[in-house]
Amino acid sequence: MNTKTESLQNFFVRLMANKLFETFVVSVIIVSALVVGVKTYDISPNVLQALAIFDWVITFIFLFEISVRFVAEPNKWKFFNKAWNIFDTLIVVVSLIPIENSDMALLGRLIRIFRVLRMVSIIPELRMLLNSLAKALPQLGYVMLLMFIIFYIYAAIGSTLFQDINPVLWGDISISLLTLFRVMTFEDWTDVMYETMEVYPLSWFYYLTFIFFTAFAFLNMIIGIVVNVLEEEHALERAEEAEASGEPSLGELRDEILSLKEAVQKINRH
Amino acid sequence: MNTKTESLQNFFVRLMANKLFETFVVSVIIVSALVVGVKTYDISPNVLQALAIFDWVITFIFLFEISVRFVAEPNKWKFFNKAWNIFDTLIVVVSLIPIENSDMALLGRLIRIFRVLRMVSIIPELRMLLNSLAKALPQLGYVMLLMFIIFYIYAAIGSTLFQDINPVLWGDISISLLTLFRVMTFEDWTDVMYETMEVYPLSWFYYLTFIFFTAFAFLNMIIGIVVNVLEEEHALERAEEAEASGEPSLGELRDEILSLKEAVQKINRH
Amino acid sequence: MNTKTESLQNFFVRLMANKLFETFVVSVIIVSALVVGVKTYDISPNVLQALAIFDWVITFIFLFEISVRFVAEPNKWKFFNKAWNIFDTLIVVVSLIPIENSDMALLGRLIRIFRVLRMVSIIPELRMLLNSLAKALPQLGYVMLLMFIIFYIYAAIGSTLFQDINPVLWGDISISLLTLFRVMTFEDWTDVMYETMEVYPLSWFYYLTFIFFTAFAFLNMIIGIVVNVLEEEHALERAEEAEASGEPSLGELRDEILSLKEAVQKINRH
Amino acid sequence: MNTKTESLQNFFVRLMANKLFETFVVSVIIVSALVVGVKTYDISPNVLQALAIFDWVITFIFLFEISVRFVAEPNKWKFFNKAWNIFDTLIVVVSLIPIENSDMALLGRLIRIFRVLRMVSIIPELRMLLNSLAKALPQLGYVMLLMFIIFYIYAAIGSTLFQDINPVLWGDISISLLTLFRVMTFEDWTDVMYETMEVYPLSWFYYLTFIFFTAFAFLNMIIGIVVNVLEEEHALERAEEAEASGEPSLGELRDEILSLKEAVQKINRH
Repeated sequence: MNTKTESLQNFFVRLMANKLFETFVVSVIIVSALVVGVKTYDISPNVLQALAIFDWVITFIFLFEISVRFVAEPNKWKFFNKAWNIFDTLIVVVSLIPIENSDMALLGRLIRIFRVLRMVSIIPELRMLLNSLAKALPQLGYVMLLMFIIFYIYAAIGSTLFQDINPVLWGDISISLLTLFRVMTFEDWTDVMYETMEVYPLSWFYYLTFIFFTAFAFLNMIIGIVVNVLEEEHALERAEEAEASGEPSLGELRDEILSLKEAVQKINRH
Repeated sequence: MNTKTESLQNFFVRLMANKLFETFVVSVIIVSALVVGVKTYDISPNVLQALAIFDWVITFIFLFEISVRFVAEPNKWKFFNKAWNIFDTLIVVVSLIPIENSDMALLGRLIRIFRVLRMVSIIPELRMLLNSLAKALPQLGYVMLLMFIIFYIYAAIGSTLFQDINPVLWGDISISLLTLFRVMTFEDWTDVMYETMEVYPLSWFYYLTFIFFTAFAFLNMIIGIVVNVLEEEHALERAEEAEASGEPSLGELRDEILSLKEAVQKINRH
Repeated sequence: MNTKTESLQNFFVRLMANKLFETFVVSVIIVSALVVGVKTYDISPNVLQALAIFDWVITFIFLFEISVRFVAEPNKWKFFNKAWNIFDTLIVVVSLIPIENSDMALLGRLIRIFRVLRMVSIIPELRMLLNSLAKALPQLGYVMLLMFIIFYIYAAIGSTLFQDINPVLWGDISISLLTLFRVMTFEDWTDVMYETMEVYPLSWFYYLTFIFFTAFAFLNMIIGIVVNVLEEEHALERAEEAEASGEPSLGELRDEILSLKEAVQKINRH
Repeated sequence: MNTKTESLQNFFVRLMANKLFETFVVSVIIVSALVVGVKTYDISPNVLQALAIFDWVITFIFLFEISVRFVAEPNKWKFFNKAWNIFDTLIVVVSLIPIENSDMALLGRLIRIFRVLRMVSIIPELRMLLNSLAKALPQLGYVMLLMFIIFYIYAAIGSTLFQDINPVLWGDISISLLTLFRVMTFEDWTDVMYETMEVYPLSWFYYLTFIFFTAFAFLNMIIGIVVNVLEEEHALERAEEAEASGEPSLGELRDEILSLKEAVQKINRH
């Protein structure tokens, strides 16, 4: 490594730490979000052309910013260990591919939308929030699996029994799963029920038990999360308390008393 | 018991503990779930016939797996003490009954759907989840009873007053109960209300108080569960703490101090 | 008080404590609930007449049961201090009034429905549940008032601005309050909104802020209740702990140590 | 400051502390709220004229009450430091402006509605409630931002893909945002979905992921608030405990034991 690249690296590290540079990048992301929003309106071709140029400017600023971050990183391999860096690079690289075909143009526009997510990758508080959300997901895994099993069994029963009543809602198991999700959100679920009750008058039992089971599993999930979060808080709290207070433990007090007892017994033995 | 059956039992115990065997059984259950799902689609008779054969293969694998579990169990009576074993046996035995009549064929298909529930009986985490759900049920008993009384009284009032307005919704007390459940889920409840308000302009009071009462009882139920769960956690936590820490109690400390006092008083008495 | 009435009182106290008598009264209440339910169906005049007689039997059993409770009570004034006793007496007394006029017959039927509530007055667990619900109400008083103020302001704005757009929904302030309650339950609220947005394109702001404010106040209410319940539990827990453990307090330990110190200092003074 | 104004200030301070005066002001606010409500009904011109006079009386009572509060305040600058005082003054001053033009009359009526909010500024418990709500808002800031980003990305995708299917729902990004809010409240969301599924059969994925993400973020928000509130309560509780109990800390006990040890060692050294 020669001194020139080293000094460039140092310069980029200082640039990244610069508050003004960070604010500038956040502003560019907000502007890119606004550009995405403006494009959904009916706009004159002139403005559209101006926006296209603007888009390229944003892409190159993003490219520059990621280069700065990459050069500033002393260990180049570590850079790609962070999921957010890969996400940022991917978004920018894909934006660089020139798209002219109209079908691909739609894809290009969709990818540009995800540049708004760079907001999350740049603001630490949002990144933390998303990480904590991601951390909660595996805990929910088994509840999700149980819920899927409930959904699957009810969908199989539903499409077996109700297929001929309304194929649009109960045609096959995947359509039935969607219909059951609709029932779970209480969206016009009585219309679905009244239709099948004309053929099977007892089918209200099917819907009511399904609603009970999903509501119950959902409740269980929420309680699980709340308890989990509270426990973590408690553990953290107690650890902090123990560390910060400097208070002796009851065991330490006992040891002091025992050593005192020994001293008194020594007197008695005299 | 001769040595041959003993060795078979030992072999089966080893087989059950085998990770590969467990994975194989879980795979078969997933495949049986997929077969259930595929059957809901419009499929050619050839595939249907293939699935029928496949179905028998699955049934026999299940039969084999339950036999293994039964033989591996040293105490045969204990086997049927576990609810899940009875459930598994029932599902398999019913699947063995040959069904040709078209009416019964539907029943046969429905029973095969419940084979997906074997997923719960085979994965310990799901079994635990379901057990904890079942444990929470009796606690909710009285709240459920209270809620049913609220529903019953409102259904009786509803079918008494609104019977002639819309017999489809308020014809008798059981239909009224269903209508009230619909109102509780906020599903087009204003349509129901506006209809009766044309005859009884003050009937909004009926719906609003009903929504308040049920929402309130529901809230109470959730709080009851949360408090209960948190209390159990606390109790568990404290028990673990007391056990794991090896810290003396305040009472033990006092005893130490008192014995020390005696020793000192002994000196004074000299 | 002569010995005869005294012995009758004793007999009634024993009768009330009798498990069989309690079960009998609960059964009669359940039967009276079923009679109320059966009456909502289309039934033949013969059955109706039989039910009328049955009704009188139930009324007299209730009358007898309340008399037993009244006589068994040593302090007659105390009897009417309990809200449930007054409720029970009222329900029975009103049932005794013979009603023949058809208009009053409907009222008579409605009053008989409330006999189902005697279930709550007779089963202690349900009475406790309802009492705890009633206890939570005053805590919610101010949140309810705040919510009513939010509702009132929005209803006043709504009926001022939207009166001419749809008088059925926004005709006057009381109708507007009902419409806003409907919006809060998300019941076809977009239909209400899209209608007013045709005249006032910015009226989405009215609905969204309303939903936010009520959701927020509601959230606050739930949190308030949860915190309150948990606090009560904590207080109860700590009180129980302190009482049951027999553990000395830290202050008592200090006193012991100080008295010990004095004894040691007495030695030193020798 | 001469003695006359001083005595007036003292008189006003006494007046403000007077329970009767407070009750009178609350009554006037309630009456002003009722006047606002009555005006939404179709009323005869005579009553309307009477209400207009009544309105002026209320305005002048409010003006008097605020003057009392202003004069009673020793430090005149401090008066305008309280947000509620500014709000009260603004409401009253605006009410004083005579409005005759019909367009402005509507504005005048709307402003008079906000006089109901004076209820909150006069009742301390409601003021506290609103303050605590306001305090919770900044904590929710980042979750709100995250949620807005989710909404924005989905709205951009939605209006890009579905614009031609239904311009009323997906015309541009702001309409799409409103449509997504509707989907979040589950209000006829399946109608929206089924429409787009006819063109893009996989668009159910768009809606389901959106519902999951918002529900998840919402859940996170609620948990965040609950944990926060509970922590505050805990901190408050512990602080109160430590202050009120007068119990020594474990550290103080250790110090006592150590000083005792020293005394004993002094004996041994003899």
